[in-house]
Amino acid sequence: MSQHIHVTVWNEYRHEKKNEKVASVYPEGMHTAIAQGLDVAGEITIATLDDEEHGLTHEVLERTDVLIWWAHTAHGEVQDEIVNRVYDRVLKGMGLIVLHSGHFSKIFKKLMGTSCDLKWREADEKERIWVVKPGHPIVEGIGEYIELPQEEMYGEHFDIPEPDELVLVSWFEGGEVFRSGCCYTRGAGKVFYFRPGHETYPTYYNPQVRKVISNAVKWAAPVQRDYPVYGNAKPLEIIKGQ
Amino acid sequence: MSQHIHVTVWNEYRHEKKNEKVASVYPEGMHTAIAQGLDVAGEITIATLDDEEHGLTHEVLERTDVLIWWAHTAHGEVQDEIVNRVYDRVLKGMGLIVLHSGHFSKIFKKLMGTSCDLKWREADEKERIWVVKPGHPIVEGIGEYIELPQEEMYGEHFDIPEPDELVLVSWFEGGEVFRSGCCYTRGAGKVFYFRPGHETYPTYYNPQVRKVISNAVKWAAPVQRDYPVYGNAKPLEIIKGQ
Amino acid sequence: MSQHIHVTVWNEYRHEKKNEKVASVYPEGMHTAIAQGLDVAGEITIATLDDEEHGLTHEVLERTDVLIWWAHTAHGEVQDEIVNRVYDRVLKGMGLIVLHSGHFSKIFKKLMGTSCDLKWREADEKERIWVVKPGHPIVEGIGEYIELPQEEMYGEHFDIPEPDELVLVSWFEGGEVFRSGCCYTRGAGKVFYFRPGHETYPTYYNPQVRKVISNAVKWAAPVQRDYPVYGNAKPLEIIKGQ
Amino acid sequence: MSQHIHVTVWNEYRHEKKNEKVASVYPEGMHTAIAQGLDVAGEITIATLDDEEHGLTHEVLERTDVLIWWAHTAHGEVQDEIVNRVYDRVLKGMGLIVLHSGHFSKIFKKLMGTSCDLKWREADEKERIWVVKPGHPIVEGIGEYIELPQEEMYGEHFDIPEPDELVLVSWFEGGEVFRSGCCYTRGAGKVFYFRPGHETYPTYYNPQVRKVISNAVKWAAPVQRDYPVYGNAKPLEIIKGQ
Repeated sequence: MSQHIHVTVWNEYRHEKKNEKVASVYPEGMHTAIAQGLDVAGEITIATLDDEEHGLTHEVLERTDVLIWWAHTAHGEVQDEIVNRVYDRVLKGMGLIVLHSGHFSKIFKKLMGTSCDLKWREADEKERIWVVKPGHPIVEGIGEYIELPQEEMYGEHFDIPEPDELVLVSWFEGGEVFRSGCCYTRGAGKVFYFRPGHETYPTYYNPQVRKVISNAVKWAAPVQRDYPVYGNAKPLEIIKGQ
Repeated sequence: MSQHIHVTVWNEYRHEKKNEKVASVYPEGMHTAIAQGLDVAGEITIATLDDEEHGLTHEVLERTDVLIWWAHTAHGEVQDEIVNRVYDRVLKGMGLIVLHSGHFSKIFKKLMGTSCDLKWREADEKERIWVVKPGHPIVEGIGEYIELPQEEMYGEHFDIPEPDELVLVSWFEGGEVFRSGCCYTRGAGKVFYFRPGHETYPTYYNPQVRKVISNAVKWAAPVQRDYPVYGNAKPLEIIKGQ
Repeated sequence: MSQHIHVTVWNEYRHEKKNEKVASVYPEGMHTAIAQGLDVAGEITIATLDDEEHGLTHEVLERTDVLIWWAHTAHGEVQDEIVNRVYDRVLKGMGLIVLHSGHFSKIFKKLMGTSCDLKWREADEKERIWVVKPGHPIVEGIGEYIELPQEEMYGEHFDIPEPDELVLVSWFEGGEVFRSGCCYTRGAGKVFYFRPGHETYPTYYNPQVRKVISNAVKWAAPVQRDYPVYGNAKPLEIIKGQ
Repeated sequence: MSQHIHVTVWNEYRHEKKNEKVASVYPEGMHTAIAQGLDVAGEITIATLDDEEHGLTHEVLERTDVLIWWAHTAHGEVQDEIVNRVYDRVLKGMGLIVLHSGHFSKIFKKLMGTSCDLKWREADEKERIWVVKPGHPIVEGIGEYIELPQEEMYGEHFDIPEPDELVLVSWFEGGEVFRSGCCYTRGAGKVFYFRPGHETYPTYYNPQVRKVISNAVKWAAPVQRDYPVYGNAKPLEIIKGQ
């Protein structure tokens, strides 16, 4: 595993400019809070929707080991060409961490092959995120649960493929549960979905949330290995009658 | 589980019309051989690429419990609108069985979220398909392995998500292995990929291959249940401070 | 799948004889309530701890397709020989449904390979069991959730192997979550763990709980197939130099 | 993840003393070849069956991060007390790598909950181990496959639970396939089964085999985290009517 990791934090960066409440919580944008919370040896690049090519040029993506994705209100504005570019990089090995409302992003839906729909509610309610896979590197240093005094509720059924590894499950005050930390492999790349992070709450300043994201970056970093060879293949053994 | 199953067998149906060898093996089309091999109580509908709407109208899909898909040479001619229609039906519960070269169909790639690429070779070589999950309903009545004297080779790496259940693994004379029977859930629907069935070989007359497909149809038939409710949700419990 | 299923309901049957409250809820024993709730075509046998050989003679087990297991206070009294007998039958294909406090039974721990420990609390609190795998046959006919007004709490971390399929997740009033419906394969046999059913509550009269257990019986019924051949094997192909 | 890893290599160490052919391949014992192949920052301890307490005292196990296990002819001589000691350490987080004929060890069977039986043949045949999960850290630096000119054959059905992650699948000259690299979690511990390594072949000198084992050690190293709290739990939320 590479020790020096190039992380790109991608943020839609719209709520912060338009909504006073969000701006007061994240005055420099959610990407800044997410980036500042990363305890990872390496480099961090910021990219946002309104940058040229959404900040995700071929050059940026080529040197990105792990891409973090936060988006909510403008999924439709992300160009299909860029989505396909990110998708290709994931299959080639780039890690992808999808946060909160990113569940409805084009890239997450394309990688999952499902609607990624869910129940939701904004009611300032308590969320308690329980660890259900205690030996997983993504929960290193995390207690039995993470408690967030106020969050948006996401509830089951969450229309995702059965996770390769289910690490976290949320309890909500209003009566729902949610699979909140889900690991997948797609091609040579690893994908982690992590639920919390509604724009009106200071969730990305929470040390435990930051720790999970930092752990996930290390877990999702690419393995150094040649990409598989596909297509027509000569036999490795003698075939009778040939 | 519904006992009376409506199966739709979809076939590209091009090789049979253009290639003499294929026509001699499947004079009435591969779909006919597949349909005749189904030991399932219910009704069978045939649909092909050159039918209007590829034979997959809303009406046909609405009453289809399980769709079987064979295609190879004309994946690109399948209209995106029809692909999306099939996709929506799978998420709502319709079973889908993807055969052989259907691995590269738009619908399979869309449901998997990966390239679905693989190694391949046409060399009239032997394939031996081993059962690795003996208690699975898809291998009911199947011996330890199915031996096919001549088949096209498909080899790893097969770029699919890790199967929810891996039921069959192939050995090839030329030295490769392949995950040949793979179960997935997508939304409320079940998906089974089954490897064998190159158009120039009489694979779909093989009784064991037919048995696997028949079993897969029963396994993939929809469960009778209301579709989940998504979207904004009222709390089921009282939220403090509200 | 066999349509005619032989079910054996095994109950420790001690609480009902000693505890007035339990006796008032289950006057004929919990096994009777469980058996009466089974909507399965076939035969039902009752077996209890204090029967000779715990009611699980070779003859009984040989003809059992699916064994249901409820126990709590006397796990240690189950003889190892009988545990091994049940274990062997599961590996040979018999289905096993482990209910509630059966999580700590010798047979469940032996099949799981983990401690099967958990958090618990008796506080007459509300449980809401959410469906997280809507297309699974075990939740056929079940709504989005099952609500039980009073149950014992079981909370994470539940020390089980990651389920092959996670079907149900519980929310508890006191703030915990729990993986409540878990599918496994062991050898040729299927195992389903289902959480609810504390002895002081009328849980096994609940129509939705009964439906889940009935569905699970059908899901866990053995596949008709020869048991795999193990041990020394002659080559199926010519080995060079031999 | 801990960077400094304490590895204990456990070897039955009997074949080497009794069988001239094995002694000629592994003159200092298989454990020495395995230990010399480890490219891991940390310390390596050797332990063998005939050491006091099999070399696995409480002290040794307490400081072991990852235990490697090779055994074949004397599984029955391993004391149950020591097996339970290793089992407890795995559930608490110690990694375990089980090699080749270790599939029939008491500890592996106890952790798997199945018979762990398989087909086998000693016929000096070729094995080709294919990578089926290219992004997994255990295959970092490994090519598309590892070819071993002569090995013992292990064939399906291999009676193990469906692996949490299937990383490697073997092709054998004699016509079989085998799931050769299998990841599991048990409690807080990670378990990796790796097939190759018959005592009469120089398999543990193969650089690719050594690389896989070294990668597996890093993958299986424990996560730093408090062990979960089990047992009676006070509510985290107010329960109505209490």
